[in-house]
Amino acid sequence: MFKERFSVAYSVTGNKNEAYEKAKDICLEQTVEIPDSLVPDNFIRKHILGKIESFNKITNNRYKAVISYAIENIGNEFTQLLNTLFGNISIKPGIRLEEMMLPPKVLRNFKGPRFGRTGLRRLLHERKRPLLCTPLKPLGLSSKGLAELAYQLALGGIDIIKDDHGIADQCFSPFEERVKLCAKAVQRANKKTGYSCIYVANISSHANQIFKKAVFAKRHGAGGLMIAPGIVGLDTMRQIAEDDSIGLPIFSHPALQGTCVINKYNGISHYALFGQIARLAGADAVIYPNFGGRFSFTREECRDIIDGTKVKMGNVKPILPCPGGGINLKNVPELIRFYGNDVIFLIGGSLFSHDRGLVEGCKHFRKIVGGSH
Amino acid sequence: MFKERFSVAYSVTGNKNEAYEKAKDICLEQTVEIPDSLVPDNFIRKHILGKIESFNKITNNRYKAVISYAIENIGNEFTQLLNTLFGNISIKPGIRLEEMMLPPKVLRNFKGPRFGRTGLRRLLHERKRPLLCTPLKPLGLSSKGLAELAYQLALGGIDIIKDDHGIADQCFSPFEERVKLCAKAVQRANKKTGYSCIYVANISSHANQIFKKAVFAKRHGAGGLMIAPGIVGLDTMRQIAEDDSIGLPIFSHPALQGTCVINKYNGISHYALFGQIARLAGADAVIYPNFGGRFSFTREECRDIIDGTKVKMGNVKPILPCPGGGINLKNVPELIRFYGNDVIFLIGGSLFSHDRGLVEGCKHFRKIVGGSH
Repeated sequence: MFKERFSVAYSVTGNKNEAYEKAKDICLEQTVEIPDSLVPDNFIRKHILGKIESFNKITNNRYKAVISYAIENIGNEFTQLLNTLFGNISIKPGIRLEEMMLPPKVLRNFKGPRFGRTGLRRLLHERKRPLLCTPLKPLGLSSKGLAELAYQLALGGIDIIKDDHGIADQCFSPFEERVKLCAKAVQRANKKTGYSCIYVANISSHANQIFKKAVFAKRHGAGGLMIAPGIVGLDTMRQIAEDDSIGLPIFSHPALQGTCVINKYNGISHYALFGQIARLAGADAVIYPNFGGRFSFTREECRDIIDGTKVKMGNVKPILPCPGGGINLKNVPELIRFYGNDVIFLIGGSLFSHDRGLVEGCKHFRKIVGGSH
Repeated sequence: MFKERFSVAYSVTGNKNEAYEKAKDICLEQTVEIPDSLVPDNFIRKHILGKIESFNKITNNRYKAVISYAIENIGNEFTQLLNTLFGNISIKPGIRLEEMMLPPKVLRNFKGPRFGRTGLRRLLHERKRPLLCTPLKPLGLSSKGLAELAYQLALGGIDIIKDDHGIADQCFSPFEERVKLCAKAVQRANKKTGYSCIYVANISSHANQIFKKAVFAKRHGAGGLMIAPGIVGLDTMRQIAEDDSIGLPIFSHPALQGTCVINKYNGISHYALFGQIARLAGADAVIYPNFGGRFSFTREECRDIIDGTKVKMGNVKPILPCPGGGINLKNVPELIRFYGNDVIFLIGGSLFSHDRGLVEGCKHFRKIVGGSH
């Protein structure tokens, strides 16, 4: 016991003394949760208490503290790992979770993404170029209307066609009806094109429904599942991803996770949340708002996400970043320079307003990213 | 269809024009998620699109926008309600979810807390005075050690004895062993005292374990369950709360939820998160850091939580606020003046450092809150 520890980097605000006090406080708060004076002077103080491994200045009023914890503190549970990383200190101002460094002994407990970058490409029969993804919307269309859209998008050569995250199980397009029709529409288009487009069903739903929905989607031809872990819980996503009876790629949607990253002095870094944590929670691709679109992520934050999706993490595979928002025919070449080929471009509005119609718009996009016809 | 709408109050930052643009953007982003120019001029624009119902100045650079949505948009799902309330806009700076106004037609879909204020008091046979709760800690104690603590706390007259939220399923005190011993210890003390103390087991765990853990805890005499919805998902808590085969009171713990409330221009208000949403998600009591303790909540924010726990919400019962952190013998009288009797005081450190020992410390607390012996 107590042979290995794992480390977590936090940034903390304040002058040197204040920041160091915050670091010491993290050591207590994330483990024993009692005042230092009450910590027993035995293995609890020696091993269970967090330890400051390093403490360095970032800027005048910000410091980086690397804190280590005993592996035993998390007892093999992803939920307890999350709790140890950032549970109570999420409530304390001026502490941000930046990065975690997990040894193989911890990583072994998590299967991580089933497909990852390579597996997803194999599934889509596309080894090199950036992949294309489009949401089916708006909310209010009938299942038939959404399926017709899916057919056209697949015909135009989109690789991944997903439900909009607001389309769940409403009377306009009930889940089962929609999934059957959209999956069929995409298969029908694939027969015509010879492509391997997949339909990704949004299964974000009640805790006692989500597993059933995953199984239903798989049985009726969906090629992937979209889950918003901010809504259903990160561990629920992990459960679906790791379940061998499902075995579909998982697309993580950022709904309700925004507050975690919106303030750079609190919450969780883009790198950790959309990179490392998404991977531990089984996502094969992580959807997030691209820089320059209608959200506020910066180029630097998007770069951090890319890094987090591919940093070496033992057995846990690298995954594909899936930026969305404001991606159009004009800026795609620039975005390819930024992202390289290992990316899924999530394109919405600009396809639907293409002047030669939807199918031609898709073909145009596919050509720009280097797709063959 | 489209006969009723529900309303949500947001605060948005910016000058009048900027704030109004943000409000219009919420209407799009939380429903159709396409640019206004692409919204079809049929029932989708008329009903599905969000509508600004009112827009008023709060301060110079802050406005309150009340936005209504079609009830049909959420399709009876709590998850989709959460998504509609704050999914994508959680990623946009300067928007905060303040309050929701849900008509009976929506509220009917949720059982809410099984016990609520009255039910929890009935269970504990204590109609009037503030209730007392203590966590078992620190992490690292054996199950036997925790059970011995539980025995003494129950003997001293604590009403609710709960696992520390960092105590999950570690080798020091494995879940099943700990739950059995702690529940028995409390029952043994109850026989001596004649009180109705309950042991509350922390079941925050993997998505595929949490239900089993709830059933196990019930079967072995736990009188309540603690769940951290920030870790396992709000809807997972709801599922456990609504399940008739479990039927135990639920204590919601704020771990990992802090980032939601830490910045007053983003995220979710204390009122909505720890009050309204906790209730919809089935909590009977909501744990949060008290003002003046080692966290940063203000008196005003704690007042907002109290209001959120009891505001009229159709069939959804009021619940008990459970402030913790920095509560001691000296400030309890002041806290009773602030909270009144409808509160659970979560007391940690100050009990353990009482000069006449743990049991006497508990008795002292019990006396101060008006408990009989």
